[in-house]
Amino acid sequence: MRAAAQAVEAELGLIVPERAHDGLGRLHAAMRYALLGGGKRLRPFLVIESARLFDAPGAGALRVAAAIEMVHCYSLVHDDLPAMDDDDFRRGRPTAHIAFDQATAILAGDGLLTLAFEVLADPATDADAACRCLLVQRLAQAAGMAGMVGGQMIDLGAGRRSLGIGEIRELQALKTGALIGFACEAGALLGRASAAERQALLDYASDLGLAFQIADDLLDVEGDAKLVGKGVGKDAAAGKATFVGVLGVEGARREARRLGQSAAERLAPFGGRADRLAAVAAFVVERKH
Amino acid sequence: MRAAAQAVEAELGLIVPERAHDGLGRLHAAMRYALLGGGKRLRPFLVIESARLFDAPGAGALRVAAAIEMVHCYSLVHDDLPAMDDDDFRRGRPTAHIAFDQATAILAGDGLLTLAFEVLADPATDADAACRCLLVQRLAQAAGMAGMVGGQMIDLGAGRRSLGIGEIRELQALKTGALIGFACEAGALLGRASAAERQALLDYASDLGLAFQIADDLLDVEGDAKLVGKGVGKDAAAGKATFVGVLGVEGARREARRLGQSAAERLAPFGGRADRLAAVAAFVVERKH
Repeated sequence: MRAAAQAVEAELGLIVPERAHDGLGRLHAAMRYALLGGGKRLRPFLVIESARLFDAPGAGALRVAAAIEMVHCYSLVHDDLPAMDDDDFRRGRPTAHIAFDQATAILAGDGLLTLAFEVLADPATDADAACRCLLVQRLAQAAGMAGMVGGQMIDLGAGRRSLGIGEIRELQALKTGALIGFACEAGALLGRASAAERQALLDYASDLGLAFQIADDLLDVEGDAKLVGKGVGKDAAAGKATFVGVLGVEGARREARRLGQSAAERLAPFGGRADRLAAVAAFVVERKH
Repeated sequence: MRAAAQAVEAELGLIVPERAHDGLGRLHAAMRYALLGGGKRLRPFLVIESARLFDAPGAGALRVAAAIEMVHCYSLVHDDLPAMDDDDFRRGRPTAHIAFDQATAILAGDGLLTLAFEVLADPATDADAACRCLLVQRLAQAAGMAGMVGGQMIDLGAGRRSLGIGEIRELQALKTGALIGFACEAGALLGRASAAERQALLDYASDLGLAFQIADDLLDVEGDAKLVGKGVGKDAAAGKATFVGVLGVEGARREARRLGQSAAERLAPFGGRADRLAAVAAFVVERKH
C-alpha cells in the first residue's frame, strides 16, 4: 500500500503542479493541499492491484488511481464544509476551508471533480476510447446522485433519525461503497477482464467497503484521535446512525471480521495473484487509523 | 432560442426525473430546481445551432446541450452560495440554497457536474467513442481549474482590487467564455467539422462571450430587476471590476456592439446556414434580461 500511495502521490503532484501564487495559484495550492495531505490511498491501491491481476499497463492504472483519489479528496473537502459535516480537522491537519477559506474549498473541490474526468478521458489513460468512455460513465455513476453524492445526501437527511441495519448498509453502499467498487471495477476494465472476473472484484469490493466503514465506525468510538488524524466520538455526538450504534462494539467487530474474510474469499478465482488484495481486507478490519 | 430552450428543458426533465420525496428525492428536487428554473438557455442554443451547420444528429446535440446546461446551472448554484457571491435571488426565484439549504445546494451542484460527464460519455450521445472522449476532455477543460472554476477563483480574489481592461477580459474569458466556447466547439465535434470550421466557431464564441458579459455588466447598472430576474447594482456595491467600471456605460455599449458585429462576421464561412447564430450575437448585445 505504501508503494501505491507514493506512486499516486507523485502522479497527483504532476497533474496539479504548483503555480506562482496569483489567483489561479491559490486554487492550485488548495487542490494540492486537498490531494497531498496523506491518507491511506486505499482506492488507488485497489485500482493498481486489480489492474495487475490482468497485467494491464501500469501507467494507465496509475492515472485512473489518481482520478479516483481526486474524486475521493474532493468529497472530503465538500463534506467537511460548515454547511455539511462541519469538520475542522482531518488527517492531522486543518481541513481545506480552515487552511484556506470556504469559497476556495468549494472551488478546489469542484476543480478536482472536473479534473478527474479530464484525466480519464485522455488517451494517455487507455488506448481504447470505448474503454475510456466506460471509465468516465462508471465513475460518474459511482460518484454522482445514485452513488456517493446521493449517499451523503441521505446521511445528512438521516440526521438523528434512527436507521435500521439495512438502511445503514444501503446508505454506506452509496456513500463509500460505490467508489470503492469502481476502484476495483476500473482495474477489471483496464485489464479487459471477463464478466465473471469483473463481478468477483465487485463482490470483493462490496464486502471490503462495508468492512472498511464498520472499522471506521469502531475507530470513531474506540480510536485514538492522534492516530486517526481527525476528531473521534463525532458520530455519537451528532446522533448519527452507525453500525456500532446498531450492532454494539463487539457485534460490529464480529461483522467487520466476517466481511473481511468474505471479501478475501471472493478472490478465489485469481489464486495467489490476489494475495495483496486479500491481505488488505484483513488490514482494513484491524487498522488503528 | 425558445424552441431550443423547450427542447433542452424536456431533455433535462427526462435525465433528472422526479422521485418520491425520500433522501434521494430531495436531491433530485434540488437538481431539478436548479435546472428547470428558466434562463435563456444560450449555451444549449449554441450547441444545437452549431451542430446543425454540419447536419449532425439532433438527438446527440440535444444531449450535449443538456450536459452543458447542467454545468452552467451547477456553477450558478455554487456561485450563489453565501461563501461565494451570496445571492438570494436568481431568475426571479430564491436561489437553491435559500429554497433548500446550503448542504443540499452544494450536493445538487456536485451531482449536476458529475451527471454532465455521464451524459457525454454515454453511447447515446455519439456513436464514436473517440468523439465522446474528446467532448468529455474539452468540457472538463472549459469547466475546470483552467476555465470556469479558475475564472470564479480569480473573480473572488480580485475583490475590490481594480483590474485593467486586459485583466477583466482574461477573467471573463475563463469564467464565462470557456463554456460558451465549448458549446460552439461541441457542435463542430459532433458534426466532424474541419479544423478551420471549428476555429471559426471558436472565434465567434470568443467575441460572443465577451459581448454577452459586457451586456450583463450593463444590465447590472441599467437593468430593471424585475426583467433581469436577479438583484441589480450588486457589482458596484461589491466593488467588482466590470467592463462598465473601466469603459463607462457608453464605452461599454459601443464595445459590446463592436464585438457582436465581429462575432457575426466570424460566421462568414457558413453563409446563410449560420443566420440564427448571427442573429443571436445581436440579441445578446441588445437584450433587456
